[in-house]
Amino acid sequence: MNLFAVAHALTAELVDALLSRPGLRIERIVSQGQASPAGFWYDQAEGEWVLVLAGAARLRFEDEPDARLLGPGDWLDIAPRRRHRVDWTDPAVPTIWLAVYYH
Amino acid sequence: MNLFAVAHALTAELVDALLSRPGLRIERIVSQGQASPAGFWYDQAEGEWVLVLAGAARLRFEDEPDARLLGPGDWLDIAPRRRHRVDWTDPAVPTIWLAVYYH
Repeated sequence: MNLFAVAHALTAELVDALLSRPGLRIERIVSQGQASPAGFWYDQAEGEWVLVLAGAARLRFEDEPDARLLGPGDWLDIAPRRRHRVDWTDPAVPTIWLAVYYH
Repeated sequence: MNLFAVAHALTAELVDALLSRPGLRIERIVSQGQASPAGFWYDQAEGEWVLVLAGAARLRFEDEPDARLLGPGDWLDIAPRRRHRVDWTDPAVPTIWLAVYYH
């Protein structure tokens, strides 16, 4: 599977597992317009290293005043238990994420 | 650091550590024309999940007759001790790799 290829129109987020090992999981996630539900925060036991391959998104940390705008090539490391949410993804084009979850 | 940004002309391969944890290392590697030395094979104790973000490369496994041509979005998981080499990277443009090394 080529990570830049998105085969069909998206009605929901698409998640593909690329690698699954003890303590390590790599996924491709494709969003188009989806965002976290109002008031929802991810609060994960795992660390998450995440890279935007295509598209655009706004990711917000509870401990920061402003969302971060992410585009292709932008990445960040989200520490375990650091609460965050996706405020916005571009509705016009697929946003392709590469997420590496680790213990 | 944006992963698609390559600041200057390359005279040698460029390696940037993006994450370093026990049993896990994420690096960006930028090649332009470099290949593994003649007769050299990588023979790693770690697993390596590798993705081409930009450019083009030919990666060869010792246990396969033909090299694999990789372009943007192509990825593979290289098992520990599976001998492999980079036969070629495009001399005309930077080839940007994302490598996830894991135990």
